[in-house]
Amino acid sequence: MVSIEMIVAARARLRGHARRTPLLSSPFIDELAGRRVFVKAECLQHTGSFKFRGGWSAVSALDPAVRARGVIAFSSGNHAQGVALAAKLHGVPSVIIMPSDAPKLKIANTRALGADVVLYDRATQDRDAIGAALSGERKLTLIKPFDEPQVIAGQGTTGLEIAEQTEEEGIRSAEVLIPCGGGGLTSGIALALEASAPAFRVRPCEPEGFDDTTRSLASGKIERNAAMTGSICDAIITPQPGNITFPILQRLAGAGIVVTDEEALRAMAIAFVRLKIVVEPGGAVALAAALFHGDQLEEDNVVVVTSGGNVDADIFAGALARHG
Amino acid sequence: MVSIEMIVAARARLRGHARRTPLLSSPFIDELAGRRVFVKAECLQHTGSFKFRGGWSAVSALDPAVRARGVIAFSSGNHAQGVALAAKLHGVPSVIIMPSDAPKLKIANTRALGADVVLYDRATQDRDAIGAALSGERKLTLIKPFDEPQVIAGQGTTGLEIAEQTEEEGIRSAEVLIPCGGGGLTSGIALALEASAPAFRVRPCEPEGFDDTTRSLASGKIERNAAMTGSICDAIITPQPGNITFPILQRLAGAGIVVTDEEALRAMAIAFVRLKIVVEPGGAVALAAALFHGDQLEEDNVVVVTSGGNVDADIFAGALARHG
Repeated sequence: MVSIEMIVAARARLRGHARRTPLLSSPFIDELAGRRVFVKAECLQHTGSFKFRGGWSAVSALDPAVRARGVIAFSSGNHAQGVALAAKLHGVPSVIIMPSDAPKLKIANTRALGADVVLYDRATQDRDAIGAALSGERKLTLIKPFDEPQVIAGQGTTGLEIAEQTEEEGIRSAEVLIPCGGGGLTSGIALALEASAPAFRVRPCEPEGFDDTTRSLASGKIERNAAMTGSICDAIITPQPGNITFPILQRLAGAGIVVTDEEALRAMAIAFVRLKIVVEPGGAVALAAALFHGDQLEEDNVVVVTSGGNVDADIFAGALARHG
Repeated sequence: MVSIEMIVAARARLRGHARRTPLLSSPFIDELAGRRVFVKAECLQHTGSFKFRGGWSAVSALDPAVRARGVIAFSSGNHAQGVALAAKLHGVPSVIIMPSDAPKLKIANTRALGADVVLYDRATQDRDAIGAALSGERKLTLIKPFDEPQVIAGQGTTGLEIAEQTEEEGIRSAEVLIPCGGGGLTSGIALALEASAPAFRVRPCEPEGFDDTTRSLASGKIERNAAMTGSICDAIITPQPGNITFPILQRLAGAGIVVTDEEALRAMAIAFVRLKIVVEPGGAVALAAALFHGDQLEEDNVVVVTSGGNVDADIFAGALARHG
């Protein structure tokens, strides 16, 4: 359902719009990890996360007449901002349905990116019904956060860049550690690397207690998380792997790696000191895996994706205070 | 004394060693500044500042037999780390003379980058005498922090990248705001832009009370700062403009812009929220100038260099707490 041709086509559509994020490194991080670590800093992407790639890919792939009617997305976080900015830059309306208790800054940012933000009460209102009513009325196109081929193709462009950038560094094989929620980024990168750097293997990384993908890969069938709250890694908490993403991961991914919230916070502090980048907790789990779970790795080289940087100042300062 | 040919030659020597740092932007920053702002993120350079460029340029330009004896530098900060890493990667020894009251982390980092760190007591010992004795004995080459042609040429490679990256963005003219200490980075970029993007003009940016370059440009002769301490922007506090750098700035730079420490801290917080980069106070003065002194700017487009990110966690957290 998602092919390398779709990823290559997405790259062409993203050119000049998405940022080619840098591949960073530090001898101090190599020393801590006991191997060479290359950090693909997607926190530096527009809107502060890789989600802009998928948002742009999906919006730009629409038939112009369909696109002109607008798009709709459900999200309280990074996907909201990615879709909103992609729509704005295409000059088409976007409706983002957000819970009314979402952080005020995220609501404000999504509005400032041009979206029509519709708030709903999680306790009393049915988000899907609101979405269905709005999209039916206005004939908006729903942009799903991960189980959507053009979104996966957009996230996969990260993998094409990883292949190019590691080749420039002379790296011929590596494990690629990726923060994994619904699996859109991980499966997209896996498909891109299968075609462009087949000696590379992706490893999904998740927070403790929300390791649905790790357990699903181990059991061979889709497993659910017991809860949807209780980790600071909010950006990558999803109920279960996607129906499109999971078969891709089954075919191409190595075993998942699970890290604690505390390890994610330590990784954020190390990224601050050694790389000068701002990483959010969910975006730091792959770096945490490289730093603190090296016993589960096999290769001398690892690529780590820091997938987002949308973290509140008090959480960031807390991570630095404890681990800086 | 420093020519565009030297900068182009430095670029060739830096290729594959220095990082081509990204040019970042945010619609939120454009909105705050009232114009388009492009941020050249040199805080993402190796060792966390642009100083690695000059260090590499100077070390790589030495005659191999001279280089093999080693290099020496005086620095408590970013220049120390830039020279230490450049020497290490060339496989030659480095001696860095640092005050014994320098931050422990900076001393540890410089040692970890392979340098032989020699500490001296600011109150009772003469740093120059220690340096002269050491370099005479071991025939080390002194790498000065800014008033040194090959160092200026290395910093100037930042300007060649700015010219290329703004051309990719379709920008034909801009003011280029640069944190200015001794003027190595500002004069190097000015020379690079004179040749490769002549419609661009550099504007040195300094902290209040340490505006030696701004006053020197205004008066037409080298002016000194009254003090050497008292600003949080420690990385760019120097006694006066250099003898090599100042004539270049006189010929090519627009008027200096002076910002307060408080504005630098606010700019750091905005860079955290909107760009996901870590900028140190001295590295944030140009962004502060773009954000808070737009009345002194003429162009619709500005390029801002964030020159370094080596800031302690408590100062960074303080900036976020007050302005996040």
